[in-house]
Amino acid sequence: MTEPPTAATRLAHAVREKHSIVCLGLDPRRESLPPAIAGTIDSDRPDVVAAAYTLFCKEILDVAAEKVACVKPQSAFFEALGPAGVVALGEVIAYAKNLGVEVIVDAKRNDIGSTATAYAQAYLGSASPFGGDWLTVSPYLGRDSIEPFVDACDRQSAGIFVLVKTSNPSGGMIQDRITDSTPVYRCVADALCQWNADRLNGLGYGPIGAVVGATYPDQLAELRSALPNAWILIPGFGAQGGGVDDVRPGVARDGLGAVVNSSRHLIFAHDRQPYREKYSAGQWQHAVADATDEMNSQLSTLLPPAP
Amino acid sequence: MTEPPTAATRLAHAVREKHSIVCLGLDPRRESLPPAIAGTIDSDRPDVVAAAYTLFCKEILDVAAEKVACVKPQSAFFEALGPAGVVALGEVIAYAKNLGVEVIVDAKRNDIGSTATAYAQAYLGSASPFGGDWLTVSPYLGRDSIEPFVDACDRQSAGIFVLVKTSNPSGGMIQDRITDSTPVYRCVADALCQWNADRLNGLGYGPIGAVVGATYPDQLAELRSALPNAWILIPGFGAQGGGVDDVRPGVARDGLGAVVNSSRHLIFAHDRQPYREKYSAGQWQHAVADATDEMNSQLSTLLPPAP
Repeated sequence: MTEPPTAATRLAHAVREKHSIVCLGLDPRRESLPPAIAGTIDSDRPDVVAAAYTLFCKEILDVAAEKVACVKPQSAFFEALGPAGVVALGEVIAYAKNLGVEVIVDAKRNDIGSTATAYAQAYLGSASPFGGDWLTVSPYLGRDSIEPFVDACDRQSAGIFVLVKTSNPSGGMIQDRITDSTPVYRCVADALCQWNADRLNGLGYGPIGAVVGATYPDQLAELRSALPNAWILIPGFGAQGGGVDDVRPGVARDGLGAVVNSSRHLIFAHDRQPYREKYSAGQWQHAVADATDEMNSQLSTLLPPAP
Repeated sequence: MTEPPTAATRLAHAVREKHSIVCLGLDPRRESLPPAIAGTIDSDRPDVVAAAYTLFCKEILDVAAEKVACVKPQSAFFEALGPAGVVALGEVIAYAKNLGVEVIVDAKRNDIGSTATAYAQAYLGSASPFGGDWLTVSPYLGRDSIEPFVDACDRQSAGIFVLVKTSNPSGGMIQDRITDSTPVYRCVADALCQWNADRLNGLGYGPIGAVVGATYPDQLAELRSALPNAWILIPGFGAQGGGVDDVRPGVARDGLGAVVNSSRHLIFAHDRQPYREKYSAGQWQHAVADATDEMNSQLSTLLPPAP
């Protein structure tokens, strides 16, 4: 029996096949939906709004799945609708998996022991009820809060992205505190490095990734070099202010090792120029497709030439 | 118009009225359910298992709601069943609220900006879809990841418990790192203290609580004194090894300021002595009631005499 490919292998294949390091963030917000989707909401009932979120995300996936390395639904926006929203999250993930896209569930889960195992059971692997490929995880509880997720990655051919150095202004409050010349974020990175060491695929990557914001390019360079075997999920591109030069230090020379997330800037592209003028309300999906193409084109200098 | 009571006020009233500082943890696990509940599961379908979780939690609430200061459903065990489990979580919270019990949703959510706001919208306040009174929150992302929850506490008369010093062995990996004589957990505690300062109720408590494990009694004493205005949620009692002397430093002299969580030890009491022998399979709820009485009795030395 052949072992199924690991999450790190699947992500590398996706980057190469699609010639893209874009991670498309699926962050539905009612107030920002294109009018064509918002118009389907004829009640404030959570299941009605949730159905609109599902439709919105499916239509985005239809036009963009082939263009991106992976997609990242943000659980918070689905949870904000209550249980009906969580049902929609499950539907969106299933739809993406049907299209063959790698799915990172952005839920920043964290707990200890059997509780962490329960979160892993919920989200990681095609046999799990939510069926994600990767899950974001928050490390404040320390090593024994991550290990149950690492075990699940082994069992489910899944991966996690652990928050290391985040993109927000006050992330440094904890992450940058230095003890014996080592900031907290390096301490988290060192643990990641050890977990990956026994789990490398043929390309040299393990299933334990890191979240490192584009807004801190110096730390991104430092962490790229400290974590040669980890995929890095880079938020903070576009709407949060990071540009191509800011993410460059995160990408390995062969074009692997990093995916760059953009959410609002892509999924709500209908509402910004030049797309607002270019497309009618019924053509909002074209704006998503164009914005994704534009982001791929911006980032293409970080990749080897397309075959 | 009278302002509704704050979460900190409601919790104080609950402690005084019920003469209890017990937080009853609702952590349903299929493999540990009493046979009378497990017997209702005639299929592996998630909605069938979820219905058993709902029934289990409702029956526990029926016998224990009047005996405890608050209840704490653990979201992970519900999420592990997928969307159907999350529907059950909503039902359990609604049932508890109908019985008038203060509900802490243990979900350790964390994110930044509008994403954190979305989590707060999901869980905090009677108008929210899940309808919790309190939510546990993880602080690795720093100050600007907590502020959206603090704002929601103001708007929704809700509260949060921020992870400060957790009960698990490797929590110290990040939490105990010392910079300029200040460990990370104190740095988190200091931020909490400032948020509470402008938000104190008549008893001197604010809506921003702290999670501090019973397994570190010295830090619990230190944090009680550093956080005189914060409710402390103390896990680690019972199954995790903490005893009455370990939680004593967390409780203020007037018996307020702390709630002590126990989950497995109470909800699965049917499966341990003396209850296993004392009650038949159909009487598992009596074991929960007795175990809760026993925990109240153990902790009663920390409270002023009942009126």
